[in-house]
Amino acid sequence: MSERDLAASAGPSGADSATGVSDAAMYSLAVDAMGGDGAPGIVVDGLAIAAERHPAARILLIGDEARLAPLLARSKAARSICTIRHAPTAITNEMKGTAALRQRDSSMRLAMDAVARHEAQGVVSAGNSGALLALAKIVIKTMPGIDRPALAAISPSACGDVVMLDLGANVACDSRNLVEFAVMGEAFARVVLGLPAPTIGLLNVGSEQMKGDDRIRQAADVLRASALASQFHGFVEGHDITAGTTDVVVTDGFTGNVALKTGEGALKLAGSLMKQVFNANVMSRLGYVLARPGLDRMREWLDPRRYNGAVLVGLNGVVVKSHGGTDAEGFAHAVDVAMDMVTHNFNERIRIGVAQLGNALASTRPVAAAPDTNPAVPGDAADRTTNRLATTG
Amino acid sequence: MSERDLAASAGPSGADSATGVSDAAMYSLAVDAMGGDGAPGIVVDGLAIAAERHPAARILLIGDEARLAPLLARSKAARSICTIRHAPTAITNEMKGTAALRQRDSSMRLAMDAVARHEAQGVVSAGNSGALLALAKIVIKTMPGIDRPALAAISPSACGDVVMLDLGANVACDSRNLVEFAVMGEAFARVVLGLPAPTIGLLNVGSEQMKGDDRIRQAADVLRASALASQFHGFVEGHDITAGTTDVVVTDGFTGNVALKTGEGALKLAGSLMKQVFNANVMSRLGYVLARPGLDRMREWLDPRRYNGAVLVGLNGVVVKSHGGTDAEGFAHAVDVAMDMVTHNFNERIRIGVAQLGNALASTRPVAAAPDTNPAVPGDAADRTTNRLATTG
Repeated sequence: MSERDLAASAGPSGADSATGVSDAAMYSLAVDAMGGDGAPGIVVDGLAIAAERHPAARILLIGDEARLAPLLARSKAARSICTIRHAPTAITNEMKGTAALRQRDSSMRLAMDAVARHEAQGVVSAGNSGALLALAKIVIKTMPGIDRPALAAISPSACGDVVMLDLGANVACDSRNLVEFAVMGEAFARVVLGLPAPTIGLLNVGSEQMKGDDRIRQAADVLRASALASQFHGFVEGHDITAGTTDVVVTDGFTGNVALKTGEGALKLAGSLMKQVFNANVMSRLGYVLARPGLDRMREWLDPRRYNGAVLVGLNGVVVKSHGGTDAEGFAHAVDVAMDMVTHNFNERIRIGVAQLGNALASTRPVAAAPDTNPAVPGDAADRTTNRLATTG
Repeated sequence: MSERDLAASAGPSGADSATGVSDAAMYSLAVDAMGGDGAPGIVVDGLAIAAERHPAARILLIGDEARLAPLLARSKAARSICTIRHAPTAITNEMKGTAALRQRDSSMRLAMDAVARHEAQGVVSAGNSGALLALAKIVIKTMPGIDRPALAAISPSACGDVVMLDLGANVACDSRNLVEFAVMGEAFARVVLGLPAPTIGLLNVGSEQMKGDDRIRQAADVLRASALASQFHGFVEGHDITAGTTDVVVTDGFTGNVALKTGEGALKLAGSLMKQVFNANVMSRLGYVLARPGLDRMREWLDPRRYNGAVLVGLNGVVVKSHGGTDAEGFAHAVDVAMDMVTHNFNERIRIGVAQLGNALASTRPVAAAPDTNPAVPGDAADRTTNRLATTG
């Protein structure tokens, strides 16, 4: 139904409290229907899948009503959770953050506005990452006590999933930012991975205390003296990410972005080598057939759609970025992530974490990094976060 | 034979010029016999293998003569290329760089001294990486025109081997350092990979020109205006390393170290998943047997020993770090790398590259990074560079 129909009807009194979703906002999520390669078709199909998993969700679907109405008409499931809000324009993939800010009637902007006005608790978009970051900072704004939002995502490891941040929202970070990322990553791991006391590692070039630069050593000192001390493992190295040494891996946006893409690249290389091996001759092809059930299971673990949904943490609302090239199943997963965060009061957990850390942070004079003249995220940094591979857990 | 025996004999008139090794130095390489987990046994066994491949090499084998003499007595091959020089002490793995500098009679120090005195053209050591970097900087010294040495190694990609640097010698780098790394990496790729005009990429969070920080954008500007312009591809991302987008990947020591270890970790994860798949049941084990020839070939490509030998580039001599835990075959590979660099006048190529770049560099006011208070390399950074996996080429 469209908003006009909704106004004519009794209208929902707020989301179902049985789901844990707050009644304060009318909608659980505002979804940018026009972002991503297959929008709006993929978005609506994704919401149809999400409707099965979150029947009590209330989705404000924002985009070109003329295109959305017929799509919803064809999908009873999507229709059951969605309300259309018309947006006359959309942000293109090529648009810079500054241009996106000027376009006040885009579907992405109206989705952000809905969160800023407390109509919805979160945003999901598969659109332009740079625009999403710029709009989120300006419209939804950073949470009190948090200096900068960070991009976080789940990544596979030999010991189960690992939360990694920042993946590109901040090219340069000071020691205070790193500490805040640790607090936000810890809250993320509790909510999305369901861990009672996630362990935290600070990414460095060695595990000894004297390794790294002043910035990273000061962040470690603050964490060792903080309320998170018992969960702080200390420094971890690149190979610790996939080894699952800690549940949360904290780093600056430059290093995190490079590490994420390097890990993905290495897994892709391993996959292409395996393919060559199995295609080499009749015997190896037969070998493939025999091992196929396990190989298929491995491919499922490694399905990037299972890792779709990078989260911009540290804002006054939940902002989830779906990969622009994902399909309906992948988009549904990004909706899952957003619903998880909304349902489990992710931001409230961060607020508690920041408050507990208050004194430790107040006594810190941050070791500065170079000014963040150009965030890494525009383009495809957030997209990249979703090409992840699962593990056996 | 020991040096005393050598003095009593006619002595070599210098290395064989047929190998291209300069006659200026009496020895091709000074080898630290006491560095690494299996030293000195592994070192001598490795030199026995190297002797088959480099029969004209002259190796100054430095370490505890009482232990080395019986080892050489048992190996005709190693004996044929080695001359022992006694060193009363050795650098331990736990020793800090500053302590290593004070120990003037260690095998590693005497090996460096031999290069500084032009007795040998290069050093190979499987010992303490931090000590090796500290000693190399102080004893062998940085090449004129180069601000800082960098750690470089070969890494696998879908399009053949790739040179990556810095892998941890400098936690923080300014724009000038990055440009110098590009020059040195290019020379490395010519010599070790035998490429006539290697392409160069600067590691960044995106490939567009406005991505990254000032430091990295200025380095790109300098390279675009330099003698290397035609080989400079621009920015590359983490996944481009294993995709083989460029032959050389340039980055700071922090990012390079993390990227290297993350890639290794991801390949290790893929390997352990494959192992689980093949061990799942009788059918999959039979599948493994059928595909085994190809899988074995893949394992050979992926053999870290094939990638052993990280090079400290930018010094007045060749310095090669072998993995501390490698075996004789791996150590022989590190000797191969060092012989390649000595034979093909690696440092002369860097000198030419720096001279060609002179004007471009002179006009650069480097965009500074934080002071390099604590290099990344101590401990195992260089060691890590050797856990690399090969590709199908």
